[in-house]
Amino acid sequence: MHQHTTNPLTAAAAHGPIALTRAVCDIESVSGNERELADAVEDLLTQATHLTVTRIGNNVIARTNLGRDRRVVIAGHLDTVPVASNLPSEQRTIDGRECIWGRGTVDMKAGVAVHLALALELDNPHHDITWCFYDNEEVDAHLNGLGVVHRTQPELLTGDFAILGEPSNAIIEGGCNGTLRAVITTKGIAAHSARSWMGDNAIHAAADILVRLSAYEPATITVDGLDYREGLNATGITGGIAGNVIPDLCEVMVNYRYAPSRSLDEAEAHVRSVFHGYEVRIVDKAPAARPGLDAPMAADFAKAVRCATGQQPAPKYGWTDVARFAELGIPAVNFGPGNPSLAHHDNEHCPTSDITAVYNSLKAWLSAPNS
Amino acid sequence: MHQHTTNPLTAAAAHGPIALTRAVCDIESVSGNERELADAVEDLLTQATHLTVTRIGNNVIARTNLGRDRRVVIAGHLDTVPVASNLPSEQRTIDGRECIWGRGTVDMKAGVAVHLALALELDNPHHDITWCFYDNEEVDAHLNGLGVVHRTQPELLTGDFAILGEPSNAIIEGGCNGTLRAVITTKGIAAHSARSWMGDNAIHAAADILVRLSAYEPATITVDGLDYREGLNATGITGGIAGNVIPDLCEVMVNYRYAPSRSLDEAEAHVRSVFHGYEVRIVDKAPAARPGLDAPMAADFAKAVRCATGQQPAPKYGWTDVARFAELGIPAVNFGPGNPSLAHHDNEHCPTSDITAVYNSLKAWLSAPNS
Repeated sequence: MHQHTTNPLTAAAAHGPIALTRAVCDIESVSGNERELADAVEDLLTQATHLTVTRIGNNVIARTNLGRDRRVVIAGHLDTVPVASNLPSEQRTIDGRECIWGRGTVDMKAGVAVHLALALELDNPHHDITWCFYDNEEVDAHLNGLGVVHRTQPELLTGDFAILGEPSNAIIEGGCNGTLRAVITTKGIAAHSARSWMGDNAIHAAADILVRLSAYEPATITVDGLDYREGLNATGITGGIAGNVIPDLCEVMVNYRYAPSRSLDEAEAHVRSVFHGYEVRIVDKAPAARPGLDAPMAADFAKAVRCATGQQPAPKYGWTDVARFAELGIPAVNFGPGNPSLAHHDNEHCPTSDITAVYNSLKAWLSAPNS
Repeated sequence: MHQHTTNPLTAAAAHGPIALTRAVCDIESVSGNERELADAVEDLLTQATHLTVTRIGNNVIARTNLGRDRRVVIAGHLDTVPVASNLPSEQRTIDGRECIWGRGTVDMKAGVAVHLALALELDNPHHDITWCFYDNEEVDAHLNGLGVVHRTQPELLTGDFAILGEPSNAIIEGGCNGTLRAVITTKGIAAHSARSWMGDNAIHAAADILVRLSAYEPATITVDGLDYREGLNATGITGGIAGNVIPDLCEVMVNYRYAPSRSLDEAEAHVRSVFHGYEVRIVDKAPAARPGLDAPMAADFAKAVRCATGQQPAPKYGWTDVARFAELGIPAVNFGPGNPSLAHHDNEHCPTSDITAVYNSLKAWLSAPNS
C-alpha cells in the first residue's frame, strides 16, 4: 500500500489526535467494510521507520523492536456498528463540552486515533510496544480480528501487559464481567383455548421463572480491589402459537453478567442452580477477566494515569476483548476516551478533553522511565 | 346456474347423506374459494320446487313458504380451513368405527350434506324451514357469510328458532361460551444488560401477571340447566429487543372464554379486575350465547333428539355462529355430526353413525306434528 499522497490520515496526523479522530471516523468502516480504513492505517504506519508493520486481512499490527525488557500490547478495533445518519463527524458543543459527534467517536475511533498518533510519535518508548488495529469486533465472536491474529500469528500478540482502547471515560477500567446467555424452557400440552382444561399452559408455568428473576438479588463482588456488580436478567421471552391455542412451549432468554471471581463453569453452575427444576440450555458464554491491577506494569500504568488525570481505576462491567488477553495470560485493562453508555447510540459523541487526557496519560507513561 | 347434468351433488343425493358428505367434501372450498361448491348447492336446491332459492355472493338460502306458524333456520358454512393432503375424502374404519375421512368431514360438510339431503326431501315439513349455506366462517368475522346476509337481506334470516350444524357429536350443544382477547402490558426502561441497574426489566415485571393467571381458578357456571366451564389463559407472550438489552416492554396475550351468564361488558370488567393495576387492551371480543333451551321450539327439538338418540343436551364451549342468532333474538343450538376436537386436524374424520343420527333426528322432528 503506497497511497500516502492521498491518505487523509497523513494530513490529520500532523494536527494531533483530535483531528485524527475526525479523519478516522470519516472513513466509514462498519463491520465487514474495514478495508479502506485498514489500508489508510497501514499506509500511515509504514511511514514510521521505527515500526515493523504486519497486515493480516484487515488487521494491522505495528511493533517497535528496541530490545526493551517488557512489551505492552495496545489494541483497538477499526469497525463500528452501522451508521445512523451520523456521519460525517462534526465538532459540536454538547452539554457545555466540546465534543466530536458521529458514528464511532466513542466506540472506538477516538481511541484508535490516539493510538495512531502515539504510534507515529513514540519512536523511543520506555517499553516495546505492539500497536494492534483489528476488524470485526462488533459482530460474531468467531470473526473477531484479534482472534484471527491469535490463530494465525500468535507471536504477534505476546506481551507483558495489554491496554485496550475501549471507551472508559478516560479512566482505567480493569478486567471485565463475564457474560452467559441461557434459555429456560417450560413445556405444556397444546389444546384449543375453548377447552383449556384439556391442555397445560406452558406460559403459566413460566410464572415461577419470572418470580425467581424478579426476586434475584445480584451480588457485588470485590476482585483485586474493584467492585464488580453482577446482573441476572431476562432479555427475551416468547411463547404461544395462536390466539386460540393453549401454548405448549415458553422460552425465557436470560443473560447473566458475572464478576471475574467466577469461572465460566461456576457461572453456568450458578445459573443452573437459580433455575433448578427447569430445562436450562446454555446458548452463549464468554469468560470474565480479572482486573490484573496487581501486575507490576498495570500498577505502574495506574499510577501514571493517576498522576496525569487524578483518576483511580474502576471496574469494567461490559464484556470486552480484555478477556481474550486474560485467556492468553496477559494482564489487560480498558483505557479509552468516551462514555461507554453512548456506544452504538445515534447521538454518539466523545468529549475532546477525554481524547487529550488519554493521549497525555499514555504518552507520559510510555515516554517516562519506569518508576 | 343450470349445470345439474354434471353436478356431482345431484348423483350423490340419490344415495343419501353419507354419499352426499363425500361429494360435498370432494369439492374443495377453503375459505375464499367457495364459488364452485356454492354453484353446485344452488343448482341442487333449485331442482326442488318446494324451495325458493336466493343467492347472495357465495351464500345460498333456500326457504319453504308453506304458511306454517313457525319457522326454523338451519344453517351451515360451506368453507373449510386449508387442505392438508387430506382430500379427496376416503371411507375408512378408524378405532373400529366406519368414518368418512378428509378435510371438512367434521367442520362441517357432513352437517351441510345432512341439510342438503333434508332440504330436498322435506317438501311438507311441520315448520317452515330456511336452509342457509354460507361462506367465510373460518376467517375474519367481518367476512362471515351469515353476517353478509344479515346486513344485506336480514328478512331472509328471520325465524323462531335456529339450528347450526356445527360438529357436536350428534348431540344438542346449547349456546356457546363467549371469547375475549386482551393484551396485558408491562413497561420498563431499556439499558445495556452489562449495566442492568440502569434499566428496569419489563419481563421481570410480568411475573405477577403470570402468577395471577397461574393462580386463577376458572368458574363453572350453570345457565339454563347446562354447566359452562370458563377459562382464562395466556395464549402468547413476547418481550425483549436483543440478547444484551434490558427489555422495556412485555406483552401477554390472554384469552378469556366466559359463560353465557356474562355480557361482553361484564366479561371485559372481569378481565380488567383480574389484571388490576396493569395496562389492559381489549383486542378482540365476541359475545356468549345462552343455550335457549327454555324456548318452546328448542325444548321440543331436544325432546325429539332424545327420542331418536337417547342423548341429552350439553353445553357448547367453543364460540360458534349461534351467538349471531342470539344477537338477533333467535334461540339457537348446535347440532351436527363429528367430534369438534377433530375440527381442523389433518386427521379430521366423522363417524357415519353420527351423520345418520343427525339426519334421523332432524327428519323426525321436522316431519312429525309438534307434540
